[in-house]
Amino acid sequence: MGDLTRTALAIDVDLLGKFDQWMASHGYTNRSEALRDLIRAALTEAEWQNPTAEVVAVLSVLYDHASRALAQELTTIQHKDHHAVLCSQHVHLDDHLCLEAIVMQGKARKLRRLADRIVSTRGVRAGRLTLLSRHV
Amino acid sequence: MGDLTRTALAIDVDLLGKFDQWMASHGYTNRSEALRDLIRAALTEAEWQNPTAEVVAVLSVLYDHASRALAQELTTIQHKDHHAVLCSQHVHLDDHLCLEAIVMQGKARKLRRLADRIVSTRGVRAGRLTLLSRHV
Amino acid sequence: MGDLTRTALAIDVDLLGKFDQWMASHGYTNRSEALRDLIRAALTEAEWQNPTAEVVAVLSVLYDHASRALAQELTTIQHKDHHAVLCSQHVHLDDHLCLEAIVMQGKARKLRRLADRIVSTRGVRAGRLTLLSRHV
Amino acid sequence: MGDLTRTALAIDVDLLGKFDQWMASHGYTNRSEALRDLIRAALTEAEWQNPTAEVVAVLSVLYDHASRALAQELTTIQHKDHHAVLCSQHVHLDDHLCLEAIVMQGKARKLRRLADRIVSTRGVRAGRLTLLSRHV
Repeated sequence: MGDLTRTALAIDVDLLGKFDQWMASHGYTNRSEALRDLIRAALTEAEWQNPTAEVVAVLSVLYDHASRALAQELTTIQHKDHHAVLCSQHVHLDDHLCLEAIVMQGKARKLRRLADRIVSTRGVRAGRLTLLSRHV
Repeated sequence: MGDLTRTALAIDVDLLGKFDQWMASHGYTNRSEALRDLIRAALTEAEWQNPTAEVVAVLSVLYDHASRALAQELTTIQHKDHHAVLCSQHVHLDDHLCLEAIVMQGKARKLRRLADRIVSTRGVRAGRLTLLSRHV
Repeated sequence: MGDLTRTALAIDVDLLGKFDQWMASHGYTNRSEALRDLIRAALTEAEWQNPTAEVVAVLSVLYDHASRALAQELTTIQHKDHHAVLCSQHVHLDDHLCLEAIVMQGKARKLRRLADRIVSTRGVRAGRLTLLSRHV
Repeated sequence: MGDLTRTALAIDVDLLGKFDQWMASHGYTNRSEALRDLIRAALTEAEWQNPTAEVVAVLSVLYDHASRALAQELTTIQHKDHHAVLCSQHVHLDDHLCLEAIVMQGKARKLRRLADRIVSTRGVRAGRLTLLSRHV
């Protein structure tokens, strides 16, 4: 993205060896790449502690397709907050089970509330809000 | 889904009052619904501790669109494991930032490895694996 | 503690069966006990989102005993906030590795900051803040 | 501990600036120290996924002192596994609420089971297992 720089990391030989093993077992071939990912994860977590930070999230929801009413209701909730919902993807897992991945953008507090509203809707079996950041 | 039954929960009056407040602030209007959600979350967590359990997951990934090479590479990785990847949704967040929500199905161990491979790819900024269950 | 009451949980027969299995494998012999524990965990998590809530925590810290200076420094930090630190327990894991479990009480925000200060001290290898609640 | 070495981290200027802010707000004054802590946290998490790894843990437990029977029962459970329990610290939070921090050492699987047994005991209000590593 922007300009690259370099910084040095002083580290115990033994700890570095273990980190290299961890990297390999997680598919990393580049140490800086792995370190940057750890840094970004820490920054993202901190960003979400600020309720007014502008963040991105994916809400993953499982529900029974049994009642058309539910799919309708979820769509209505999302439309009311259409500024926050960017798009959503629907997967038919089997006869009655649906998975919906809803991509959202907005203030952390607002996204949490919207997610709560969807997850607490009767018939929704499970919902998980995945927190991401646009800024790191 | 299946047949409904009822079970009793013996609980301290004070604790129940606090749970009712929690429910309200999280959007629940029905106590059984809220309790079932807590139960399903606990079961899902346990299911993912078994590496051979058949599970469902959503991998949320952020990356820079800068290099066409990366989008290509991610597509290649997903195709190699096309039995595990059900579908994926791509969102252009801004000039260079992309978000991809990848819906996956298969054994827990296999999905974790596939996610590791994608997240550790150079240029991928962040990735989070959201664990779900088809069985609860 | 206080007065007991009963509430009914309407639940799918199949889901209840799976919950009973989960309970057994986690050592529970009583359904209400298991449900109350899930409820308390949800309430505790919500309580910690309020920075001014009065909470309880255990900070677990690992560090090298190598330098007496470090043990001294950790003690000094804890004394400065002696209202927040109730007590601490020190275990000599081996020649140089020490584990300290520090029991703290106070406002959520304050405890997080105190934990940050201790964990970021040079020579402290790892630190985890375990969040508990007095009120549920 | 062992020999020190240095490795270079190639990083975007902007991301490094944000990491420096994060460090400051978490009390770190040394970049290498902060990076090593992120590395150790990742390694510890991976270590606990191996059920036979030799690990260290702190189990934090809250319970009502009401019945002497419970304190007795918890002591009995710990004694049965005295090889795993290194020591424990008891705090009287108020008239009836007790906090116990139990330091344990052994195979990951075994410590999880012992923790389950304690947490599921009737009268125990809450329990959290904090996972640490001796090797990083």
